[in-house]
Amino acid sequence: MSVCIEELGKRARAAAARLALLSDKDKNLVLEAAADELIRHKYEILAANGLDVAAARAKGMKESLVDRLTLSTARIEGIAEGVRQVAALPNPVGEVVTDTVRPNGLHIREVRVPLGVVGMIYEARPNVTADTFALCFKTGNAVILRGGSDALQSNKAIVAALHAALKACGRPEDAVLLVEDTSREGAAQMMRLRGLIDVLIPRGGAGLIRSVVENSTVPVIETGSGNCHIYVDESADPDMAVRIIHNAKTQRTGVCNACESLVIHRNIADRAIPAIGADLLAAGVRIHGDEETCRLLPQAEPATDEDWYTEYLDLEISIKVVDDLDQAIEHINRCSTQHSEAIITRDPAAAARFRAEIDSACVYVNASTRFTDGFEFGFGAEIGISTQKLHARGPMGLRALTTSRYLIDGDGQIRG
Amino acid sequence: MSVCIEELGKRARAAAARLALLSDKDKNLVLEAAADELIRHKYEILAANGLDVAAARAKGMKESLVDRLTLSTARIEGIAEGVRQVAALPNPVGEVVTDTVRPNGLHIREVRVPLGVVGMIYEARPNVTADTFALCFKTGNAVILRGGSDALQSNKAIVAALHAALKACGRPEDAVLLVEDTSREGAAQMMRLRGLIDVLIPRGGAGLIRSVVENSTVPVIETGSGNCHIYVDESADPDMAVRIIHNAKTQRTGVCNACESLVIHRNIADRAIPAIGADLLAAGVRIHGDEETCRLLPQAEPATDEDWYTEYLDLEISIKVVDDLDQAIEHINRCSTQHSEAIITRDPAAAARFRAEIDSACVYVNASTRFTDGFEFGFGAEIGISTQKLHARGPMGLRALTTSRYLIDGDGQIRG
Repeated sequence: MSVCIEELGKRARAAAARLALLSDKDKNLVLEAAADELIRHKYEILAANGLDVAAARAKGMKESLVDRLTLSTARIEGIAEGVRQVAALPNPVGEVVTDTVRPNGLHIREVRVPLGVVGMIYEARPNVTADTFALCFKTGNAVILRGGSDALQSNKAIVAALHAALKACGRPEDAVLLVEDTSREGAAQMMRLRGLIDVLIPRGGAGLIRSVVENSTVPVIETGSGNCHIYVDESADPDMAVRIIHNAKTQRTGVCNACESLVIHRNIADRAIPAIGADLLAAGVRIHGDEETCRLLPQAEPATDEDWYTEYLDLEISIKVVDDLDQAIEHINRCSTQHSEAIITRDPAAAARFRAEIDSACVYVNASTRFTDGFEFGFGAEIGISTQKLHARGPMGLRALTTSRYLIDGDGQIRG
Repeated sequence: MSVCIEELGKRARAAAARLALLSDKDKNLVLEAAADELIRHKYEILAANGLDVAAARAKGMKESLVDRLTLSTARIEGIAEGVRQVAALPNPVGEVVTDTVRPNGLHIREVRVPLGVVGMIYEARPNVTADTFALCFKTGNAVILRGGSDALQSNKAIVAALHAALKACGRPEDAVLLVEDTSREGAAQMMRLRGLIDVLIPRGGAGLIRSVVENSTVPVIETGSGNCHIYVDESADPDMAVRIIHNAKTQRTGVCNACESLVIHRNIADRAIPAIGADLLAAGVRIHGDEETCRLLPQAEPATDEDWYTEYLDLEISIKVVDDLDQAIEHINRCSTQHSEAIITRDPAAAARFRAEIDSACVYVNASTRFTDGFEFGFGAEIGISTQKLHARGPMGLRALTTSRYLIDGDGQIRG
């Protein structure tokens, strides 16, 4: 019943060779058409999404995850607007990264080119489907999408709109292919398509990402797992700490840049913890605290060692008290997923040390971790947030979807 | 007997945290000292290398590989000079890649930082040992070296010189660690050190690289396998073709940028093949040709299908005749390892199509593929030549050994 995944890989590879030769103007026409078609297909998409949401609720999906699955007219308009924003962005493909003439007269240019075929394995977030297509297409890549089974109807409706746009513009519909086999076996097959898929980007829970990292022979960009910390320094403005922590924990909970753990300097704990705790408890947040936290905040539950490593993705948080900045840095570097961490401080020296020594993709001083996002960073959209060090780190926009090639022109040079 | 490899990983990780805080000046002092110590340890290194070379010859190692293993006073001086050249290069660490202020006032800087711990698995090429240390140390990375068993004595002597330099400068000797267990098990253990090694770079034969790609959970940069093609277009200057092909095939055969396969346009075959063939045969090259080649050059042996995919690393070459540029591009993209390919042509349109459609790291017009090299590209040295698309492509110098981090400064911003 399902199309063989290797066959999808070959079709994507053939489409990629054609996409690589398109101009930016050609590609923008398709993206504008795709935005139009998403709006035009709005009712089909909402109907399909309604089926997905009803099925998800019926099987008892957590509300924070249902929120990520749910589309509305406003959200579809937002998705279409995101596609138009990508079209309007400068295109990194074709950029000359370096340009040198060697003493022997060889002219060496490093130019940005598409990666080729991108594979995306993600959970039930239909907005990712259109975002990913826009970013991949803008950069001349074909993309194979394997979304979560809970969003399958939504994804089919969205991809139908994208195919309508490609067809109308005379471009290969295989530029975006949806894997309808949402079993584990389907994902496992994608992970072995070395040579047909150039990069595999898993977005989702820690289990999915670990499975891809362990099993893929296709190069992987690890994304999204975010055990994000906020450290409240002894010099912090307590009101600012309350405001930033409230935002980072409660504004949206099912996302990777939400704050999951607080680290509080002992010298400010007796003022900060009751204030922060009262605010979070009023917002319905469950608090897992160390001994000192539980003493200062009787409503907190004792934290287990596992809590320090847990990405709750829900109205839950852990709180640890430390003696100094050294201990805070050591604790965060040990427990974090190297995604986003923040310090609240009025001390420039503490801020400088935190910036230099915290080994995470995004390091904040006096701001909410919720800003780790392609839109917020000005990339127009994002296909994920890399938590690895290779190729791309932090929010990934267009540039992360390109590679480079050296073009060397001579007039008969040989090596001596 | 051998030190546990996980223990080496932990020591390297601890050293990396210290290296990340060193200034460029601090690091250059160590590199200058390392160059001095390599010269000062010259006789120990030559004596150790003599043992390795004698053992290699005794077991019948191919001469092209013995050449890569062999050190001389001149080669050691060249290695030391390479280390000094790296010290003199501008340091990418600390570079601000992007710097923006968002409408909400957030100041976002993307800065280059070390990768952390680099793992290197390579064959019996002792020059790689010092080159790799220099490039990794300059960029603030610790490095774990696992060289080929045939070079173990040479590598121990070189690393002893490097440790002497680190010690003299008061820097952690664990900045460079040599895995003395050169068994397959030792390499396999390195491939599982996820979290302790940030990137694994295999250099060597196709078998080694395939094994690392299949088994590593540490992110890998695939390098070095070079089935490099030269295409002789119908408009080529036949004399230039002979000169470039002679250089690309015979100047040094055991290296990945040597030419392994020729593709000749049918309209020039009867002039080009006898001339190129005569030159290569005179240089002792064994020729595997397709039917047309064997007709024009009776000394050629019939090529098997396997020949088109073979990296000989020796005085051997395959030759195929094609009808047109389309066929040449199709054949090369199918058979090459995406390393380096060249076109010999006087036709700008053919050159432009070759540049645009050949999907390799380095694409040459009228020059020898032998220039694919960090020194020749002006990088000061190289730690390998990436044949993958992710992170780095082509010769890798300092920049390939860095990643980036976003530093975001605010004054209380929260997300709306």
